[in-house]
Amino acid sequence: MSDQVLRIIPLGGLGEIGKNMMAYEYGDDILIVDTGLMFPTSDMLGVDYIIPDFQYLYDKAHRVRGIVYTHGHEDHTGAVRHVLERIPVPMYATPLTKGLLQIKIRGDRNLKNLPIHEVRPGDTVRIGPFKVEFIHVTHSIPDSVALAITTPAGLVVHTGDYKFDHTPIDGKPTDFAALAALSRRPGGVLALLADSTNADKPGWTPSEQVITPALEAAMREAPGRVLVATFASLISRMQQVADVAARLGRKLAFVGTSMVENAKMARKLGYLQVPDEVLVPLEQALKLPPEEVVLMVTGSQGEPSSILGRLAGVGGARGRRPFSVQEGDTIIISAHPIPGNTENVYRTINSLIRKGAHVLYDPIARVHVSGHASQEEMKLMLNLVRPKHFIPIHGELRHLDQHSRMAQQLGIPKERIAVVENGQVIEFRRGKMRLAERVPGGWVFVEGAVVGESSIREIKERQALARGGLLLVTVPVDPATGKLAGDVDVVTRGFVYPEGADEFTAVLRKRIKKALKGATGDLEKALEQTVKNFVYGELRRRPQIFVTVKDVARNGPASGGNGAAPRRATKGG
Amino acid sequence: MSDQVLRIIPLGGLGEIGKNMMAYEYGDDILIVDTGLMFPTSDMLGVDYIIPDFQYLYDKAHRVRGIVYTHGHEDHTGAVRHVLERIPVPMYATPLTKGLLQIKIRGDRNLKNLPIHEVRPGDTVRIGPFKVEFIHVTHSIPDSVALAITTPAGLVVHTGDYKFDHTPIDGKPTDFAALAALSRRPGGVLALLADSTNADKPGWTPSEQVITPALEAAMREAPGRVLVATFASLISRMQQVADVAARLGRKLAFVGTSMVENAKMARKLGYLQVPDEVLVPLEQALKLPPEEVVLMVTGSQGEPSSILGRLAGVGGARGRRPFSVQEGDTIIISAHPIPGNTENVYRTINSLIRKGAHVLYDPIARVHVSGHASQEEMKLMLNLVRPKHFIPIHGELRHLDQHSRMAQQLGIPKERIAVVENGQVIEFRRGKMRLAERVPGGWVFVEGAVVGESSIREIKERQALARGGLLLVTVPVDPATGKLAGDVDVVTRGFVYPEGADEFTAVLRKRIKKALKGATGDLEKALEQTVKNFVYGELRRRPQIFVTVKDVARNGPASGGNGAAPRRATKGG
Repeated sequence: MSDQVLRIIPLGGLGEIGKNMMAYEYGDDILIVDTGLMFPTSDMLGVDYIIPDFQYLYDKAHRVRGIVYTHGHEDHTGAVRHVLERIPVPMYATPLTKGLLQIKIRGDRNLKNLPIHEVRPGDTVRIGPFKVEFIHVTHSIPDSVALAITTPAGLVVHTGDYKFDHTPIDGKPTDFAALAALSRRPGGVLALLADSTNADKPGWTPSEQVITPALEAAMREAPGRVLVATFASLISRMQQVADVAARLGRKLAFVGTSMVENAKMARKLGYLQVPDEVLVPLEQALKLPPEEVVLMVTGSQGEPSSILGRLAGVGGARGRRPFSVQEGDTIIISAHPIPGNTENVYRTINSLIRKGAHVLYDPIARVHVSGHASQEEMKLMLNLVRPKHFIPIHGELRHLDQHSRMAQQLGIPKERIAVVENGQVIEFRRGKMRLAERVPGGWVFVEGAVVGESSIREIKERQALARGGLLLVTVPVDPATGKLAGDVDVVTRGFVYPEGADEFTAVLRKRIKKALKGATGDLEKALEQTVKNFVYGELRRRPQIFVTVKDVARNGPASGGNGAAPRRATKGG
Repeated sequence: MSDQVLRIIPLGGLGEIGKNMMAYEYGDDILIVDTGLMFPTSDMLGVDYIIPDFQYLYDKAHRVRGIVYTHGHEDHTGAVRHVLERIPVPMYATPLTKGLLQIKIRGDRNLKNLPIHEVRPGDTVRIGPFKVEFIHVTHSIPDSVALAITTPAGLVVHTGDYKFDHTPIDGKPTDFAALAALSRRPGGVLALLADSTNADKPGWTPSEQVITPALEAAMREAPGRVLVATFASLISRMQQVADVAARLGRKLAFVGTSMVENAKMARKLGYLQVPDEVLVPLEQALKLPPEEVVLMVTGSQGEPSSILGRLAGVGGARGRRPFSVQEGDTIIISAHPIPGNTENVYRTINSLIRKGAHVLYDPIARVHVSGHASQEEMKLMLNLVRPKHFIPIHGELRHLDQHSRMAQQLGIPKERIAVVENGQVIEFRRGKMRLAERVPGGWVFVEGAVVGESSIREIKERQALARGGLLLVTVPVDPATGKLAGDVDVVTRGFVYPEGADEFTAVLRKRIKKALKGATGDLEKALEQTVKNFVYGELRRRPQIFVTVKDVARNGPASGGNGAAPRRATKGG
């Protein structure tokens, strides 16, 4: 064991769900594990997605030796382009994960030629001072791996996402032997970093296999078309749906860009087996009798721009509908709502029912199970790996806390457990763990082409706007006299006037007139305060208020010369 | 059976959770059942609560004979003041419900003297042409009743909220005999309206009793203070906590206005038994050794102004904290998140953990069970009452749909089931059901002192503001030349400028200058389009944009004379 320090820097996925990214630093060398993104909760209006704040690495890009991926889901890969733009380094991934990464970066000239080294479970790769072994684990996507990272400071095990599925769809259970053997190595396991997502779920997560009978029953009973919505990267689910479709003599079409691309790639690499005669393009599927068709679509989270979102037409749905929901359709939501999406998902379901569809979702039918370990599996992982130190990862603080309590029940002393959130650096020196400094570890919002910087403030400002609405008041003033010189113009957005709006505006005008008399200093600021006091006094409401003073010559508004029509007070804009 | 028509008018609680209100209309007479409110989902920023849209009744107030209450929870009583203000009629309620209603209206001079007739399970009351029988059912509050409403058109059974709890906290199980006897009456039961809240939950909802051991274990193991958060109207839970506290020798204090008032009233009426020596005021509790104290607090939904919300300090918490969370506190959330509150609740839990508390909630510990029937109980209700027609109520459309499917499995033909949403009038004539016209059945938002009218539009406007943020541009123009006459002033809210904001503003200025040249018609509107195109072209973002043109004399800004300081472009306001 060396005297140098191993530093673990959590940049994402600690104290929150998704957006997983971690850096391991030893001496001058840094290794990144995963580059995930996260979907916004419903109060983060306008945000497309959230990526890790990795500014800690900005000036250390030359020291980063590579990025290792545990599996191909969005919450572990989705920010790859953002990270590579600043840190163009080689990647290491199993074949399916590599394929999914290639789809993400192939459109980018600068990135698409960066090497993605293909690794397989059982392989060992040297990346700087890190020796990384890839150990097969089960999750809801094939080709998932845990990492055994040997550093001069000791052996660290990083589980990635996992569940102990004894009957996985691809027939390959977790490599228990490889996991268990780690604890027998000289020096044992210095630290375990393990998935905490389901730390509040008692028992054992059911196998992916339990979904097949539910899917089959639903498709058998469906009088017409069947639509199955799930994540585009849930390759195992694609396989299950394809198998059932083939068995029941239905044709299968994939719908939605990411769904089509991922399916194509997974088939090419041999991770998805669909006979040619079962697969049809959407156009052909739509011409077949409904009872002979299954469509696999995007939108299991009710995203407005997904296929299901467009079909439901709720919450600002964007994009053309490729077809319509019809009476007799059976729609299966084969996913659980990600925290923050719950209302969106249920709103989508209600809208689809309103359009005549029969909608099946867990718990109405067992058409989805979690891909993450439950409490008893977490305990098994702890007892297989037998780490000296424990760092719960992947989960909100409440999950990390609960995972820590389980580890304590299993005999790991509290002082050897680090329950921390993003940005809290953890150091290992001579086999001892300590909390080091904090580095930036927040959220970076991506909206359109803008990657936010100090974005939390913008979101707070937006929430203030959305809570109170907006009141724009334009006050014409005669510059010669400083007196009101015309109608006060009021525009509102998201702020409803009370009954009797005209009367309200009249009184407001009087107050402004009065305020103008004694006004000194910043006139607009003073009038804003006047309006603010008036609105709160009358309505107990606090909209955002902006006052603009317009100079108007004695004989009517000078701006008339510009052809600007005066805008009148409007009720609700 | 008469030839006249019985009309059922759902004003709330159909196609949504909460805000329950229903009107029964026969000839000239109208009977209201419940007047509930609903809490906003997290994307309804600024809304305090939502009440039923009962404008159908505005011009029929003189025909309303009374309001009958099924039980005392907020989602069935909370809008009482709003309804009574327009429809001042007598109320009918069981003693505990009456007590909770009195607390709501006692501050209102005009309403507090309206009669609330006390009824007891087994009673029958004539209200106009309606004969209403009250049948005891179990729910998570004592004194809950189902209603058997005999009308000249037939007998209608309205369950209210219920579960079939065989071991309820107050020892009084559902009056199965009374429910079952209804089906034997001559003519049987014309229609059943039954609670659908848990229609997607298989099996049978556990008894409230299962919570006691979990509460007891948690309090026994707690090293310090115990805080239990729940709904202020969950009187049964108060009893359970009080019983456990007494058993373990802890003193109990109620914290939060509604919690204190409801507990006081329930004790006075005999629905809550707490020995005098167990109950202490908060001030005294805070002076006791922590391990001798239990505090029952409001805020199980993470509401910012509740006690728990203030302790957690998240999401715009308002109001003074009566005390602080301390290391060693055990906090029990004895409630499930209402849909729409999920993120709020988990954010609150995470924040409390961050402050050093141990937080217990379902499923980590069984400290809450639903108060509503699950699927097997719903089937039992259907088979007990054996209605000719079935109208699932209380639930989102997906719950109503699922409840309808169960009823069909039990043999009720689809055409005798009405799955409808608020505002869809249902008529019964000569024993036959048909859907009649639609009446207003939307949401009415209450914010501060304003009861909204066309509020959905305001919320949409706010969401647009919140999605894109706000860009206010003030353009100084020389009225003589129509040319730009100074700096373009940009103010933003919730809209972040890209890196290089100055450059961005400079380019924007150029575009505006150019646009001014060819401008005709409404100058401000034209410039708004210019700015809109520029921002979307550069940033792919769509903030709300407002342009104000200011007339400025050739020699500097004329508004200088008013003392208005020019506001500079700011990054993020």
